[in-house]
Amino acid sequence: MTPVRFCSIVMATVAAAGCGPAPFDRAAEQQKLLQRDAEWSEVASAGKDVDKTASYWADDAVIIPQGQPIVEGKAAIRAFVAGSFAIPGFHIHWKSDAPAFSPDGKLAYMRAVNDMTVSGPDGTPLKLPGRALTVWRKDADGQWRCVADIWNDPPQPAGGAK
Amino acid sequence: MTPVRFCSIVMATVAAAGCGPAPFDRAAEQQKLLQRDAEWSEVASAGKDVDKTASYWADDAVIIPQGQPIVEGKAAIRAFVAGSFAIPGFHIHWKSDAPAFSPDGKLAYMRAVNDMTVSGPDGTPLKLPGRALTVWRKDADGQWRCVADIWNDPPQPAGGAK
Repeated sequence: MTPVRFCSIVMATVAAAGCGPAPFDRAAEQQKLLQRDAEWSEVASAGKDVDKTASYWADDAVIIPQGQPIVEGKAAIRAFVAGSFAIPGFHIHWKSDAPAFSPDGKLAYMRAVNDMTVSGPDGTPLKLPGRALTVWRKDADGQWRCVADIWNDPPQPAGGAK
Repeated sequence: MTPVRFCSIVMATVAAAGCGPAPFDRAAEQQKLLQRDAEWSEVASAGKDVDKTASYWADDAVIIPQGQPIVEGKAAIRAFVAGSFAIPGFHIHWKSDAPAFSPDGKLAYMRAVNDMTVSGPDGTPLKLPGRALTVWRKDADGQWRCVADIWNDPPQPAGGAK
């Protein structure tokens, strides 16, 4: 094989292997992200492990909770989780859907439906449903972590009761 | 120059030009995105051009407005904008900050502070401040468009008046 021919083959291989956006397996990544989010929801739903619950947010994440101050940074996130778990009757569960990715598969966003319950003034469970948007980053260790998290109230049912 | 030496130079150039994440000018893109968002806020603030205001959202965008039904798709977005502009005393302005990007520079998210005003029951302006999170996609035409948009209420001031 002549050097020129060898060079052509190597160049063609490099070109085919892909300059441009790095390929990623969208279906696999969707499943991975939804699975991780579902695990997170289970951990939060148990309402016990503050550190584990907080670990799904990145250290530089921002949480914008409906009607509450914005939460930024790991210490504040930990305190937010601990405070939530300490609310009488607190229970949360959520389900996310249809993540969309950046072309390089490194940033994603998805919607979620939240089911939250706390004890009402008379001690009976008070349902506080919500709609959420989360943004996720695939970190250098290959793990997806939530970098932005915000939720709000659905429309109030007719009659005013939530 | 021998063919082998030529080949080495070409290969080195290809390697330097970058397989892996396509480079992007973060500072320039930040400025571009914030500038586009500021223009959008001005157009919305004027409260007149429904189509222009709606054009900053992608056709497949989702809007999750505090206390209102989720808005999806261009027709629904247009109706949402027209409906907002028709609210007595409606005025909105917002300012976004510190966009963060996917490594390929094609997806971004950022926070915003919203100032919204409507006419209160007695006709005086009622302020409805908010905190927002927006996700933006750089489309094939090089234009940034908002693909997800959600906001909620800040903490209620002591005393209960908003």
